Amino acid sequence: MLADHQLLRIPGPSPIPPSVQRAMVQPMIGHRGQEAKQLIQTIRPKLKPIFGTDQDVVVITGSGTAGLETAVVNTVKAGDEVLVIVTGSFGDRFAKICESYQIRVRRLDVEWGNALDPNQVKVLLEENPTIKAVFATFCETSTGVLNPIQALSEMVHQSSDALLVVDGVSCIGGVDTKMDEWGIDILVTGSQKAFMLPAGLTFVAASERAWNVIENNEQSRFYLDLKKYRDNLIKDSTPFTPALSLLFGLEQVLQLFEAEGLSNVYKRHQTMMEMTRAAANALKLPLLTSDVAASPTVTAIRPADFQAEDLRKVLKQEFALSVAGGQQHLKGEIFRIGHMGYCAPADILQIVAILEIALKRIGKNVPLGSGTAAAQEVYLKKEAY
Amino acid sequence: MLADHQLLRIPGPSPIPPSVQRAMVQPMIGHRGQEAKQLIQTIRPKLKPIFGTDQDVVVITGSGTAGLETAVVNTVKAGDEVLVIVTGSFGDRFAKICESYQIRVRRLDVEWGNALDPNQVKVLLEENPTIKAVFATFCETSTGVLNPIQALSEMVHQSSDALLVVDGVSCIGGVDTKMDEWGIDILVTGSQKAFMLPAGLTFVAASERAWNVIENNEQSRFYLDLKKYRDNLIKDSTPFTPALSLLFGLEQVLQLFEAEGLSNVYKRHQTMMEMTRAAANALKLPLLTSDVAASPTVTAIRPADFQAEDLRKVLKQEFALSVAGGQQHLKGEIFRIGHMGYCAPADILQIVAILEIALKRIGKNVPLGSGTAAAQEVYLKKEAY
Repeated sequence: MLADHQLLRIPGPSPIPPSVQRAMVQPMIGHRGQEAKQLIQTIRPKLKPIFGTDQDVVVITGSGTAGLETAVVNTVKAGDEVLVIVTGSFGDRFAKICESYQIRVRRLDVEWGNALDPNQVKVLLEENPTIKAVFATFCETSTGVLNPIQALSEMVHQSSDALLVVDGVSCIGGVDTKMDEWGIDILVTGSQKAFMLPAGLTFVAASERAWNVIENNEQSRFYLDLKKYRDNLIKDSTPFTPALSLLFGLEQVLQLFEAEGLSNVYKRHQTMMEMTRAAANALKLPLLTSDVAASPTVTAIRPADFQAEDLRKVLKQEFALSVAGGQQHLKGEIFRIGHMGYCAPADILQIVAILEIALKRIGKNVPLGSGTAAAQEVYLKKEAY
Repeated sequence: MLADHQLLRIPGPSPIPPSVQRAMVQPMIGHRGQEAKQLIQTIRPKLKPIFGTDQDVVVITGSGTAGLETAVVNTVKAGDEVLVIVTGSFGDRFAKICESYQIRVRRLDVEWGNALDPNQVKVLLEENPTIKAVFATFCETSTGVLNPIQALSEMVHQSSDALLVVDGVSCIGGVDTKMDEWGIDILVTGSQKAFMLPAGLTFVAASERAWNVIENNEQSRFYLDLKKYRDNLIKDSTPFTPALSLLFGLEQVLQLFEAEGLSNVYKRHQTMMEMTRAAANALKLPLLTSDVAASPTVTAIRPADFQAEDLRKVLKQEFALSVAGGQQHLKGEIFRIGHMGYCAPADILQIVAILEIALKRIGKNVPLGSGTAAAQEVYLKKEAY
């Protein structure tokens, strides 16, 4: 096999564009100097449209999980009651974080692969008026579900005073998001998915309502204290030494978003999702999620008549193509294709054509080219952009 | 379109593997120090099997054309008579180099797209016993022809004392080559094709017979004097400051060749050629060359019922896929797909699937997926390696 050839199509980390790689190897700078200040000045306004907010988006050096924990410790405290909607392993993580802070968690467990139902949330909130915050996952990476956050937000605000905290790690930057218009109170994402960067940065924005809560929240926190980040960001600075090379990369990512146009970025992700799903249907590979619940950034397939791990092994060994397996109880049951960030429709064609060969290799009698043709047909129906 | 996304599938320069890119940004070293000596020591033995020779392969900092000129000025001189076999624009270049040194050129012009016929060469050599050297092109980049160098070599040595000088720029490293066994006297290649490097290095090896001629050849030359390179190489050195970052990259390329195994490298190129040709046939795209004359590194297609340039425009604008056009009288008549170096069968699947869409875009009624299926079938018949 061609050495040093890798096709990374897991739902994050995602591949890094070459110009972003180059940006990240710029000579190091001091984090308190004029260069760092200018870097943050450039980045700061450009993050807002991606979140769909007029609020500042703070940048914290940490994994996505640090962003989720930031959302928790800044908005609620030990003893508070919260509702955590669990549609997969990342909803579960929100619950675990809350529990480790002795926050009382009411879980709404949704079958993995399904989207949350806002009406169920409404009932729970009306029954439990003491709930201070609702935690939800926008794109559930473990299942490829895109939850209906706009509808959820309307329902939460209609039926309670709770804050709505949203984990957008695996979709922000790939899915049109209107934080302010929809009424999301805290929105979190990470750098290693649709943001086309290595892991190491997490992004958090808060609504005015949320800031009022944050100001007064008594939960102890130091590194993850949002106020520190906000107060420094106003001065184009950071409270702690940031991962500067990732900020160099972020500056370039934001230029790439501008060059393509955010609306085109979102259309591209939508097209890639539709191509992947059409190919799966043509190849009779059962999709884990319904069309309406599907995320533009990741697609999960639950094979009915072969082992997902057998297929993954062929993809990796013969084509150096990495797709993800399942998590927790879906381990071995599904495989997940990431189509986010630095990924083009041309890459979906490649993944699908490889998939067809790999299915043959494991003994499936698929018509060669049929998945590819289905993906091509989807593409051709779209306006070229 | 996804910004900063390029699919470079011209017949060189070819894409650079990431580990080679990383190798090339190592800190600069002095060219007369111990590090440079060690670098050359590592590289030197590993070049020989790629050429199929026990002779040293000298590395000259220059384009492939500098390598061709090296071959000329070291073996013949003004007034000498040579035979140049012209099967395309790079054969033509050999003739131009010779003519600029007042070497008397007898051209054997072969219709572009066809391979040379050793029997024709035999006749010419027997009629012209004063011919000192025969210049031939192994892979003619401009047409995708792989000339029968082994058969040519036998014929040249049977029918004359002329040296056989071979331009292997666009195939050495992608095609099994046995310089010593076949009796090639001078073999030249460049860094930017199957060697997976940027342009800037050219490689030249000479047979013992050739070295005897080189020692005594009276043609003036300084930078391109092979003796200088050989005499320095014996001491793990170079006569002039070499392109050290390219040598860093070369060291890594040779490691990648070792990791894959040279025989696997050649099999991969053969597979990619067959996949490309099968797809072209399935899509009713006329191949410029016959199966027997086809090169494993580049495939030329001569469309019968559409403009090659219209297709190239769609490939580039909509998919950032670069394929080459035609040269000289084939300009606008053909397009050429490079499948050499850092290119895997998975990339051929991608190129073909894109091609199908582009053909639709320019109004051709091709069955979607049919070219892909043909390429997949070729792949599946091969042993996995």
